[in-house]
Amino acid sequence: MRVLGVDCGSEYTGYGVVEGDGERLLCLASGAIRLAPREALERRLLRVREELSAQIAALRPEVVAIEDVFYSVNAKSALKLGHVRGVAMMTAAEHALGVVAYAPLAIKSAVVGYGRAEKSQVQQMVARLLQLDAPPQPADAADALAIAICHIHTAATLLRQAAALR
Amino acid sequence: MRVLGVDCGSEYTGYGVVEGDGERLLCLASGAIRLAPREALERRLLRVREELSAQIAALRPEVVAIEDVFYSVNAKSALKLGHVRGVAMMTAAEHALGVVAYAPLAIKSAVVGYGRAEKSQVQQMVARLLQLDAPPQPADAADALAIAICHIHTAATLLRQAAALR
Repeated sequence: MRVLGVDCGSEYTGYGVVEGDGERLLCLASGAIRLAPREALERRLLRVREELSAQIAALRPEVVAIEDVFYSVNAKSALKLGHVRGVAMMTAAEHALGVVAYAPLAIKSAVVGYGRAEKSQVQQMVARLLQLDAPPQPADAADALAIAICHIHTAATLLRQAAALR
Repeated sequence: MRVLGVDCGSEYTGYGVVEGDGERLLCLASGAIRLAPREALERRLLRVREELSAQIAALRPEVVAIEDVFYSVNAKSALKLGHVRGVAMMTAAEHALGVVAYAPLAIKSAVVGYGRAEKSQVQQMVARLLQLDAPPQPADAADALAIAICHIHTAATLLRQAAALR
């Protein structure tokens, strides 16, 4: 299973492609799209689409995983985040990919083992799980990889449960 | 000047193309993209892009006008609206068009003459200004046309002011 994780943000949008073969996890790509605040918003959003589209075309993930949004953020932040998130979701659909969303707690639990983990713990565990020499940089890239790992773990668990029910 | 107005919404996204030659206003197209709530969000967002993209390709507006968002909406609504709004803005950039945004009060003032106008008054004035036999349907299409008219009026006013300063 190959997953593109996207960590949407109005300044940096992280992405990471992870392949999980049931035994080990492999990082195929990761990075972050920096959105220059001076550039017009519509141009920034176009760049999110172009860069995610290029990753999807090159690495052919089967699904795109994103983060569920905290409704505790204020309306202004939610709107800004929504702009980027909408473009990321649309880009997935453009490539006929589905989108799955996970709550921040679920992502941390899947990667670190508990939901209240610190950001640095997530980064370190992502590096360990993917057998990287150092935590992926910037932090947004590590967050995106964590989202992809979360989906791979969740899908594997669901498959095991389905098999046990047979 | 030819303007595509877009009224973003999570259920209906209205659009309207208006040509203003300085003397009269002409409606070239209007309608609304209905987003079926059952369809996956990413597919709905892709349809917004495809339909707006088709209008832009067919009618070649010079600019896209949208509504500024009320920050009084709650975070959940702002996120939903942001998804559609982000895709609409990105679609403009894809066609190398700029995006201008107007506050709801400014739009109503430009069309009806005062900012607290009722929705039905906006629809009727849009029909009158565009010399249509009946108010455009659905209301989202009329709202989109109102946004386009607002930009044409504002641009004309700015040009007159600039000329007066010379």
